[in-house]
Amino acid sequence: MTQRKSFGSDNHAGSHPAVLQALMDANTGDAIAYGADDWTARATAALRRAFGTSGEAFFVFNGSGANILGLSTLLRRHDAVICAESAHINTDECGSAERLLGTKLLLVPTPDGKLTPDLIAPRLAGRGDDHRSQPGVVAITQSTEFGTCYSLAELSKVADFCHANDLLVYLDGARLANAAVTLDCQLAQIAEFADVLSFGGTKNGAVGAEALIVMRPELAVNIPYLRKQQTQLASKMRFVAAQFLALIQDDLWRRNAAHANAMAQRLADGVQDIAGVRIVHPVQANAVFARLPARQIAALGQNWFFHTWDEEASVVRWMTAFDTSEADVDSFIADVQAAAARFT
Amino acid sequence: MTQRKSFGSDNHAGSHPAVLQALMDANTGDAIAYGADDWTARATAALRRAFGTSGEAFFVFNGSGANILGLSTLLRRHDAVICAESAHINTDECGSAERLLGTKLLLVPTPDGKLTPDLIAPRLAGRGDDHRSQPGVVAITQSTEFGTCYSLAELSKVADFCHANDLLVYLDGARLANAAVTLDCQLAQIAEFADVLSFGGTKNGAVGAEALIVMRPELAVNIPYLRKQQTQLASKMRFVAAQFLALIQDDLWRRNAAHANAMAQRLADGVQDIAGVRIVHPVQANAVFARLPARQIAALGQNWFFHTWDEEASVVRWMTAFDTSEADVDSFIADVQAAAARFT
Amino acid sequence: MTQRKSFGSDNHAGSHPAVLQALMDANTGDAIAYGADDWTARATAALRRAFGTSGEAFFVFNGSGANILGLSTLLRRHDAVICAESAHINTDECGSAERLLGTKLLLVPTPDGKLTPDLIAPRLAGRGDDHRSQPGVVAITQSTEFGTCYSLAELSKVADFCHANDLLVYLDGARLANAAVTLDCQLAQIAEFADVLSFGGTKNGAVGAEALIVMRPELAVNIPYLRKQQTQLASKMRFVAAQFLALIQDDLWRRNAAHANAMAQRLADGVQDIAGVRIVHPVQANAVFARLPARQIAALGQNWFFHTWDEEASVVRWMTAFDTSEADVDSFIADVQAAAARFT
Amino acid sequence: MTQRKSFGSDNHAGSHPAVLQALMDANTGDAIAYGADDWTARATAALRRAFGTSGEAFFVFNGSGANILGLSTLLRRHDAVICAESAHINTDECGSAERLLGTKLLLVPTPDGKLTPDLIAPRLAGRGDDHRSQPGVVAITQSTEFGTCYSLAELSKVADFCHANDLLVYLDGARLANAAVTLDCQLAQIAEFADVLSFGGTKNGAVGAEALIVMRPELAVNIPYLRKQQTQLASKMRFVAAQFLALIQDDLWRRNAAHANAMAQRLADGVQDIAGVRIVHPVQANAVFARLPARQIAALGQNWFFHTWDEEASVVRWMTAFDTSEADVDSFIADVQAAAARFT
Repeated sequence: MTQRKSFGSDNHAGSHPAVLQALMDANTGDAIAYGADDWTARATAALRRAFGTSGEAFFVFNGSGANILGLSTLLRRHDAVICAESAHINTDECGSAERLLGTKLLLVPTPDGKLTPDLIAPRLAGRGDDHRSQPGVVAITQSTEFGTCYSLAELSKVADFCHANDLLVYLDGARLANAAVTLDCQLAQIAEFADVLSFGGTKNGAVGAEALIVMRPELAVNIPYLRKQQTQLASKMRFVAAQFLALIQDDLWRRNAAHANAMAQRLADGVQDIAGVRIVHPVQANAVFARLPARQIAALGQNWFFHTWDEEASVVRWMTAFDTSEADVDSFIADVQAAAARFT
Repeated sequence: MTQRKSFGSDNHAGSHPAVLQALMDANTGDAIAYGADDWTARATAALRRAFGTSGEAFFVFNGSGANILGLSTLLRRHDAVICAESAHINTDECGSAERLLGTKLLLVPTPDGKLTPDLIAPRLAGRGDDHRSQPGVVAITQSTEFGTCYSLAELSKVADFCHANDLLVYLDGARLANAAVTLDCQLAQIAEFADVLSFGGTKNGAVGAEALIVMRPELAVNIPYLRKQQTQLASKMRFVAAQFLALIQDDLWRRNAAHANAMAQRLADGVQDIAGVRIVHPVQANAVFARLPARQIAALGQNWFFHTWDEEASVVRWMTAFDTSEADVDSFIADVQAAAARFT
Repeated sequence: MTQRKSFGSDNHAGSHPAVLQALMDANTGDAIAYGADDWTARATAALRRAFGTSGEAFFVFNGSGANILGLSTLLRRHDAVICAESAHINTDECGSAERLLGTKLLLVPTPDGKLTPDLIAPRLAGRGDDHRSQPGVVAITQSTEFGTCYSLAELSKVADFCHANDLLVYLDGARLANAAVTLDCQLAQIAEFADVLSFGGTKNGAVGAEALIVMRPELAVNIPYLRKQQTQLASKMRFVAAQFLALIQDDLWRRNAAHANAMAQRLADGVQDIAGVRIVHPVQANAVFARLPARQIAALGQNWFFHTWDEEASVVRWMTAFDTSEADVDSFIADVQAAAARFT
Repeated sequence: MTQRKSFGSDNHAGSHPAVLQALMDANTGDAIAYGADDWTARATAALRRAFGTSGEAFFVFNGSGANILGLSTLLRRHDAVICAESAHINTDECGSAERLLGTKLLLVPTPDGKLTPDLIAPRLAGRGDDHRSQPGVVAITQSTEFGTCYSLAELSKVADFCHANDLLVYLDGARLANAAVTLDCQLAQIAEFADVLSFGGTKNGAVGAEALIVMRPELAVNIPYLRKQQTQLASKMRFVAAQFLALIQDDLWRRNAAHANAMAQRLADGVQDIAGVRIVHPVQANAVFARLPARQIAALGQNWFFHTWDEEASVVRWMTAFDTSEADVDSFIADVQAAAARFT
């Protein structure tokens, strides 16, 4: 099994060779620690340009770190965060938001991981009542935990609603690259709808590196302190920055995401007509969510690694990465087909 | 200036080539994320052996992350931490302990960064009084922030006192390697005096990697949750673990630390007789703390990077690293000499 | 309007005269502060007896304080609390649990404010997964925020399930007296199903006083520190304790609750056949939840104070207190009738 | 012993009869809960006038609650509080500031509990360094924990320094009344030097009531949420407000404090010439700190209750209250004399 490509997570992939080469290239003697180095200066400048921000870019170690840091600059002590029930900050960070930020998450069930003004509005009911946590931030994920993607028009509607209702917007961009590919747009075209957002490097081919993009200078002022306090300040920062330099060079990030997306699409195309298989979310990034009979899931699981997303609903998640090959996908499709054939 | 070796911090050094090579070697296709990989299994096994623990080893991103994680498994909600006023957790982590752990630090002034039973005892005065934070943990640093080193006998006394007084011991080992070299002992010989300790890779030649060593199994049970909650769980963990595999291989960590220590000793030997220069702490690791006239500090600072530790007392800190050369040290000594000559 | 009895909350009532008399009686010169006084000793002894606990009783200022203190002695750093979506700790404490305890609330929608093993079980799905907050405590309310009441058999099932699944039970007893009356049982018969519970004095006729009952000694050890740290330690404690002495004397608490419950029942009986009025929850304490047309709510609201619980569903909450009279209820019923007549 | 007046604390005193009478008077049927009542409106209006604030006044249960609430509206996430080592928030609140606010206290040793610009200035050294907690608030106590009192000129200097250095001022006024008497000034004359301050009722004769005075409207906006979140919102608020109405009526607070101060002065005058007794702090409020031989302390302690403040230095604290009589003081002095005579 370990020899076959994992469809379990884009975190299972290794690092893109260009990223590792960038680490080698950055290993040239001394550099001032904690970000006062040339690599960090160049990488943050590149990110500021790419995101069209008058604010700032900051590097952190991982996605949870980016989410907590980003939210921390937006939240007051009594503020709550409105987010989808499926949001990573709710389901997959072991309660970081509550523990490290002391904030309440006001959860919104969604069909596809995406918030809309209509879904957000009811959570504002307790405004002005001192017995209720006060909604201060809306957190969205792009692309979402379900492999779906907000259109620019959808983002615009959410942002307009938020700003009209005195809500700030945080965007979890752990897979932002995949969304930019799907929307065929610039990063800045997405970023303009957020106050603060993350830009994931790790799932895109980095060893481990995430960026936090702050869209307005006044929201960036305290980030250095917050980042240090939250244990997300790298001492040898150049080695985090260098990873982003590699991903930004010639838009490697876009090529990596485009490839991963294409592989997910190839997979979806290949399985959608197989008996018993139903794709349950639009494939708009690098994930395929499919419902198929438990026996077929079990059979497939003997040869391939992937996650059962919802045991009860018999739904699995298949993820592709920058290094998933067409052959990997085709081989996987063949086994989905074989499992279907066996049981029908 | 940037061409000259920095004496500012061991964090200014790059990565040891063997560590980068280990990253390359680990980049072989897929691996399960979050630590369920072979590199992590091998590296933690090696650390358990090296530290002689029946507990467990965990990887985190940086020293602050290790300190917070380690303390979090030892502290109850109303516990305070007794530590030296100079402790990194007090002076250099932007209030992480208070913010992320909610704990009070009971600070002890020390001449040399080292706690003793006599220094700790007075902080126990409020025991049993519900108006006072209750001392629950003593945090020590080995080697200390002043480049000094507890002897094994001193550690033993602190540990005996703590355990006789119902206090747990956390040891900040960001520069533990340097101490093991100075004491010419095994890591396990130091570790036996702690309940939980960190083992620093970054200052020893890693790109960015720290280990938390938990000496008793029951203290390790909740660490996985706490690590995730504290945003210190790496998704592509193999790339953190691989760094430690490189450092452990043939005791590279010991050679790196031995070299850095030797360079600090060479530096101390070279400057101690220079007019106006006084070394203010025993040189027992890879740092030299020296007092010299402000004019000489200024002159030296034109060519070399280092930190003025105490402006008022005119004390500087000069640090060496695994890659500091004899020539670097000799050239630096010559400039200290020249600055002294100029002003006397 | 202010002259008429409020049906808005049992908090709108004043204090029972016996409670104020107890304050006068306690004002006899000096007493050691912070609970080392005779009134506190007598009141806590009485509560230990009433609840049949080998643990301890502690006084705090209010219900939120009791809830936070009680949960704080049960929760580990990475633990979550399973509770009904309607739980006071979720809806009415401005995010205290998240802010002061750092815990995540795992919310369970319920029809009537009551948890059952079947409702709790699905929230255990993430057990052992370090990405998920770990359920550690189940919090129930008795009587509930909807004026319903767990039977002893229902409590027993929840407690059995919890203890079989390594979950501790916290019981919010802000209106525990009302439940004991409804169940016609001793306080100890309810308490035996909890690990820690609160016993509300304020809604029962006190000026402002709540007790936290800890059912096992080992859970009580740290409460003094936690209470002080959470700003819930009264300096002139005798004046809190004296209130409970008054309520305990000759079971005043039971008489107060019995009267309030009877008034709610009288109200329910009086309105249930009125056109357009539907009682939506069993009346098992001192609240009546009723659905009636918006126009009737508006008409009634011109003369009486009460809360619209659910605007959209057109549901109101009418609460009675120890000092609600039969005439108050009958007058209110007549106005409900009049409003119905006007619009039908 | 219990029959004799306690010199242990002004918290040992009972309640002034006028305060209890006010509770009785407030017990007139229903009142809207949580502060939307007439008593609260009148009491906060009176306090706004007395303190000359354009901001607001809020009631809480106790001094720790006031301190935490007040600081919480002034502190950003990465801010530290500069305070005297002897500050109540540091020594006597079981780590509330660190636990509930997540803030670091930057402690300043003082001879007499009073901060000065010269004492504060060195704690600003780490400003702008993201490794250090950033000083954001200076917390002072008036009158201090040592029974001393800032003059208006001293307060002015501290306030000027703070505002020139971008520091906000919190004033712990648990014994503010005693200071206003000593300075023979209006409350507003002290308050003008603070951004937020507390005004203690409990030690002044209340059953249990403290006010938080916010001097600028913008700092008051979020207090309702913060107070609720911090479990300091009383449901039957009128009974807290009524206590303040009693204390404000005809300046009862001033008469109570004046009496307590006079008794402390009488005590100091009576003991200062006794052999072996040395008064160690100026007596500027209602406390006398005296050094006397351990044997004399022990002898005196057989008949009277008071606290040994510093065992090692053989220093005791004797406190007076609104209800300490001249006879109490004279009897106490006689025993101090007798103890001295016995051992000399």
